[in-house]
Amino acid sequence: MKARIHITLKNGVLDPQGKAIQQALTGLAFDGVEEVRQGKYIEIELAASDTEAARAQVADMCEKLLANTVIENYDIEIVA
Amino acid sequence: MKARIHITLKNGVLDPQGKAIQQALTGLAFDGVEEVRQGKYIEIELAASDTEAARAQVADMCEKLLANTVIENYDIEIVA
Repeated sequence: MKARIHITLKNGVLDPQGKAIQQALTGLAFDGVEEVRQGKYIEIELAASDTEAARAQVADMCEKLLANTVIENYDIEIVA
Repeated sequence: MKARIHITLKNGVLDPQGKAIQQALTGLAFDGVEEVRQGKYIEIELAASDTEAARAQVADMCEKLLANTVIENYDIEIVA
């Protein structure tokens, strides 16, 4: 069972990495780039066979290690 | 119009960052973590109004700046 996790900065939190990408894109003459936000994407292969148990385990992982919940949101998707 | 981009390491490319996460999770007593791969997730807000044009522009951004296509794959999703 595989978990796909997106970790993104909360709204209102400054994203200097995204800003740097935006400026680089503008420098490469890409027009119309209004905002760039960068986050993390993590794929975890789990031995668990129950979807709800897997989701609860991954949420616990996010809270304890993967995300800084003061400034980041996480989103979990479980795929078979 | 918003583009969501996932940049992931190609199969077979070593992922030391993912391996470090896996070891940290095991150290925190999470069982059954078989593999962890870390990638990047980028959201770009575009002025373009045509989906196909936006997709082509973002693919060009990935080739030129966002992804290292020697070792990374990218996946583009355009949402209204």
